Amino acid sequence: MLHISQLAHGRAREETVEMSRPISFLSDFGLGDEFVGVVHGVLAKLAPDSRIIDVTHGVERGEVRPGALALLRAIHYLPEGVALVVVDPGVGTDRRAIAARTEWGYFVGPDNGVMSPAVAMVGGAEVTVSIENPEVMIPSAGATFAGRDLFAPAAALLASGTDLADLGPVVDPDSILPLLLPLPEVEAGRVQGEAWWVDHFGNVQLNVSPEDLHTMGVSEGDEIGIIVGSQQHAARWLTTYGAVENGEALVYADSSGMIAVAVRGMRADRRFGIADGTSVTLVKD
Amino acid sequence: MLHISQLAHGRAREETVEMSRPISFLSDFGLGDEFVGVVHGVLAKLAPDSRIIDVTHGVERGEVRPGALALLRAIHYLPEGVALVVVDPGVGTDRRAIAARTEWGYFVGPDNGVMSPAVAMVGGAEVTVSIENPEVMIPSAGATFAGRDLFAPAAALLASGTDLADLGPVVDPDSILPLLLPLPEVEAGRVQGEAWWVDHFGNVQLNVSPEDLHTMGVSEGDEIGIIVGSQQHAARWLTTYGAVENGEALVYADSSGMIAVAVRGMRADRRFGIADGTSVTLVKD
Amino acid sequence: MLHISQLAHGRAREETVEMSRPISFLSDFGLGDEFVGVVHGVLAKLAPDSRIIDVTHGVERGEVRPGALALLRAIHYLPEGVALVVVDPGVGTDRRAIAARTEWGYFVGPDNGVMSPAVAMVGGAEVTVSIENPEVMIPSAGATFAGRDLFAPAAALLASGTDLADLGPVVDPDSILPLLLPLPEVEAGRVQGEAWWVDHFGNVQLNVSPEDLHTMGVSEGDEIGIIVGSQQHAARWLTTYGAVENGEALVYADSSGMIAVAVRGMRADRRFGIADGTSVTLVKD
Repeated sequence: MLHISQLAHGRAREETVEMSRPISFLSDFGLGDEFVGVVHGVLAKLAPDSRIIDVTHGVERGEVRPGALALLRAIHYLPEGVALVVVDPGVGTDRRAIAARTEWGYFVGPDNGVMSPAVAMVGGAEVTVSIENPEVMIPSAGATFAGRDLFAPAAALLASGTDLADLGPVVDPDSILPLLLPLPEVEAGRVQGEAWWVDHFGNVQLNVSPEDLHTMGVSEGDEIGIIVGSQQHAARWLTTYGAVENGEALVYADSSGMIAVAVRGMRADRRFGIADGTSVTLVKD
Repeated sequence: MLHISQLAHGRAREETVEMSRPISFLSDFGLGDEFVGVVHGVLAKLAPDSRIIDVTHGVERGEVRPGALALLRAIHYLPEGVALVVVDPGVGTDRRAIAARTEWGYFVGPDNGVMSPAVAMVGGAEVTVSIENPEVMIPSAGATFAGRDLFAPAAALLASGTDLADLGPVVDPDSILPLLLPLPEVEAGRVQGEAWWVDHFGNVQLNVSPEDLHTMGVSEGDEIGIIVGSQQHAARWLTTYGAVENGEALVYADSSGMIAVAVRGMRADRRFGIADGTSVTLVKD
Repeated sequence: MLHISQLAHGRAREETVEMSRPISFLSDFGLGDEFVGVVHGVLAKLAPDSRIIDVTHGVERGEVRPGALALLRAIHYLPEGVALVVVDPGVGTDRRAIAARTEWGYFVGPDNGVMSPAVAMVGGAEVTVSIENPEVMIPSAGATFAGRDLFAPAAALLASGTDLADLGPVVDPDSILPLLLPLPEVEAGRVQGEAWWVDHFGNVQLNVSPEDLHTMGVSEGDEIGIIVGSQQHAARWLTTYGAVENGEALVYADSSGMIAVAVRGMRADRRFGIADGTSVTLVKD
């Protein structure tokens, strides 16, 4: 098994600057420990010319769906290269570590669905391998820290021009875990959906598209009732905060193109009692 | 309207490394979502050779004054280039997006005063434009995410050598919103000021300068009373923590040159009940 | 005294890209203020070609031991270069600022033990200097912000090829403060140790090695009792989470090679009531 310094010396260092792809790194590591820094260290050793973009490390511990959605929202804005995605509640079990090649570039992470929506969004995987080659892993003094010992080296090697096939055997595309995202129930006058992202500002993204609202029979500018639990709140479908007064609610297509609920100048999540996963029903008012 | 990939291909890629200015990025986005990462992605696409410095993303949501003061304290220590400043409570209203050229470099952000003190500190704006040219913006699937779709492309293009005039029309300097900072009331034996920054260590910076203390009639080494609410606390004007015992208070000129209150080995904010905006009066003791 | 711009112009700018060492930066500054950003700014001015790795800035305020342990766990994974370590409860007192040359590279920080374990881990210091030369410091408008005015310039200059001797006089190796780490008490059937790291996931690293467990008379696979306060909890010494069911505890050699306590799918710290410094005794069951 190669030591990290040999990996760096023998492989990445030979590559030219032109070959070094940027690496976009998303995890649930938080920033309180040295986990993110150690992964950056490994990437810097093995891919010294790659730029690293921290997408976020604030995904809730082990929460695959929020991590997958954050990556999905971000992917079109990240430079083509390598996505390193470590939200891995199954670490230490027999879940596979995979790397996929797409038109956008490479995705490296656990086979638990966290990368699946973003991979689909960029056109799907051309080839996926199971990262199993011990020569591309860093030996650990104890338990494997997969982000540091397996995923980071794989990402760095792909960023530096290593072939996908050097990481491990090709896997059957049908064996890769998809992410099942809940669909809203749409009928005339009513869409029953779910909150799937409460952002830093308290805005609430739903699993509802503008098309769903059209199907239920409302158009931009119309009144829409927001039902959470036993309470119904009045709002309108608008394009921007500026169209309502402070403290008033609106329903809008957010910057990802999904329907969201906001209150100008306030946190909508607290005003309406909504958290990630809360059922939210929109009705024609 | 150009797609982001065309922007990147047609403009930034042609620039040489020498042309790429560093970009210093300050926001109230927090690090829990992918907002900061997405802005980094856009900057990396459009200004692939620019170094990005995260000044802080911990400004309280929509709080213009703390954001402005953080930028003001930092500006002399940031490499000349582009300052990207997104503390924008008026997003979605008709507040303007502006870009200013100064001796230090460019400032890009909302016209709400958040950049004004730092711009003044580096000598004022030579020219300011309103960012209105749709060709330099990234189209959104829904609502505009101004940091991603407007401010980041503007900052990246300026970092890559695009002319300020390409972003939009020049605006009247007198129309740019200043930031009104509260002045302390200084009289013999007394300065009535305000806390305007409580830092990570609980030290409290006031809107009071060493000159204000001289005017009230005290000199370094003198006893000074700190009045918060109905309580008066004893302290001395010193240059360093080392001059007092653990648990003792001091008044000092902090590393920004402003008067601050600290307690050695403790948080002064908790000891004295001070938060951002709390009235603090210093008296000759 | 040189101004920062002269420092940059006269020194770092002359260096070639090959000469610029990466800088790994660890502090207790948090990310809520502009402290980390300002240090990055100074590094970018003085070492414009150096890559900066943020190891972590989440060390508890002024807590030397946790900072030292984070650096110790990280050091082998950081690219050889300069370690900039600012956990400095004695700022403003007469504690020395030091810079040490090792086989790994340079270490820059306060002489309070925070760097000592990592320096020892990479083979010890060849030479250590006390950073005292006023020409390598940035003048402050008030109190010295040591991270910004003294440690960052020193790190940047070393990264850019400046000689260690230019920073200040060589100091006696015996005068450098070590970090005293508590040793576990090991006897037949029993190891009395201490929690010295609770990570983001609630896993608890102890000051206990696999050898200590062997000495007390247990082997991998054996049952081990975990005693915290008056409670004893059942666990087994295993290599990976996957070997237990959700909610079950295990004792394992973690990714740093130290003995740790975890509960699959839960936070072990909350389950067992353990915080940094809590006494934890492992017994043969």
